[in-house]
Amino acid sequence: MFITLEGIEGSGKTTQIQTMARWLTAAGRECLTTREPGGTSIGGQIRSVLLHPDNSDLAPTAELLLYVADRVQHLETIVRPALAAGKVVVCDRYFDATLVYQGYARGLNRDMIRQLHQLACKGLTPDLTLLLDLDPEDGLARAWRRIDSDRAHAMESRFEKETLLFHQRVRAGYLDLARREPRRFAIIDAAVDPQAVAAQIETVLSAYFQPRSDGAD
Amino acid sequence: MFITLEGIEGSGKTTQIQTMARWLTAAGRECLTTREPGGTSIGGQIRSVLLHPDNSDLAPTAELLLYVADRVQHLETIVRPALAAGKVVVCDRYFDATLVYQGYARGLNRDMIRQLHQLACKGLTPDLTLLLDLDPEDGLARAWRRIDSDRAHAMESRFEKETLLFHQRVRAGYLDLARREPRRFAIIDAAVDPQAVAAQIETVLSAYFQPRSDGAD
Repeated sequence: MFITLEGIEGSGKTTQIQTMARWLTAAGRECLTTREPGGTSIGGQIRSVLLHPDNSDLAPTAELLLYVADRVQHLETIVRPALAAGKVVVCDRYFDATLVYQGYARGLNRDMIRQLHQLACKGLTPDLTLLLDLDPEDGLARAWRRIDSDRAHAMESRFEKETLLFHQRVRAGYLDLARREPRRFAIIDAAVDPQAVAAQIETVLSAYFQPRSDGAD
Repeated sequence: MFITLEGIEGSGKTTQIQTMARWLTAAGRECLTTREPGGTSIGGQIRSVLLHPDNSDLAPTAELLLYVADRVQHLETIVRPALAAGKVVVCDRYFDATLVYQGYARGLNRDMIRQLHQLACKGLTPDLTLLLDLDPEDGLARAWRRIDSDRAHAMESRFEKETLLFHQRVRAGYLDLARREPRRFAIIDAAVDPQAVAAQIETVLSAYFQPRSDGAD
């Protein structure tokens, strides 16, 4: 089973993915957590091209192709082998992020992005996508607090420096995708505290996975 | 006018592109010579991912996408602006190289490569492609001599370390493309000495460009 987490910056994906891994393990599932971009060594190199501050002249379509190159490397070397071995793969961002950030928010043609996904990733679609939905003003406030507390992450925060309008387009894009594919998407209210977010996610996961033994945690 | 040079390693493209630039300038044309991959700063970074010896686990489709990302960056920031300014652009390798190396020689689906080109590069096709045709045994002997004389280039020679069979598939692929598009391709015999190769190229160019004044050189 292939599960993805999506949401704007500051929506708490990194925290929740750890909670999910603990829940899945407790439910007796072998679980692999991973992320895009940069989940592989080659992906890390691609990520550094994407995020390097000198690369502000990166053409939008070239940027898109680099994200997809990272994705293909990640799929072929990590995700597909883990799925083939029967593991549950939980991935922080995937194709929907590309559609939303490059398509809805930056204005690249969404049909082109979809066709590219079909060509390069053979259309691999998650079984379940958890959308951590949050007002961008709240998300950005959280994200900025995190950056202040750890300057080392500042370089990775290019997206977080975008305007509020940009992040509003991202949120609207995600919600539009969720409306179009209600069976795949579960919308999680990420404005509440992390425990309450985790509780919503666990309710969704419980519909897919039976814990190995009642009462065990 | 967009002109590309194609051919196996050791076919003399680097030498001939310089000769072509001199000829075109003498014919009164503003000329830009460039190369793939790595003709831009970002392309250089992508090229270093492609060529890094630690990246032997690069998935074939990820490799393809990196080449196309480099191409798009190169097209958008160098080739298209020069063409729009009325220059003649002469490019060392382009889309045909991808079709031949990744498709004919490595076995990636050629229709997929063509569709990707349409999506990412909006199908920009050269007006003229000069194929420097050579037996791979001769080309590899030349390429190896060059490497021996300059170890600094050894890292860039990943393709040159492929088997002879691989390069024979490359040559056959190029010749097949030339057969399919005889109006775009000119096949140049690259087995002769550089002056004789240049003479053949100049004959082809003369059909496209009138020199500014007779006898001037």
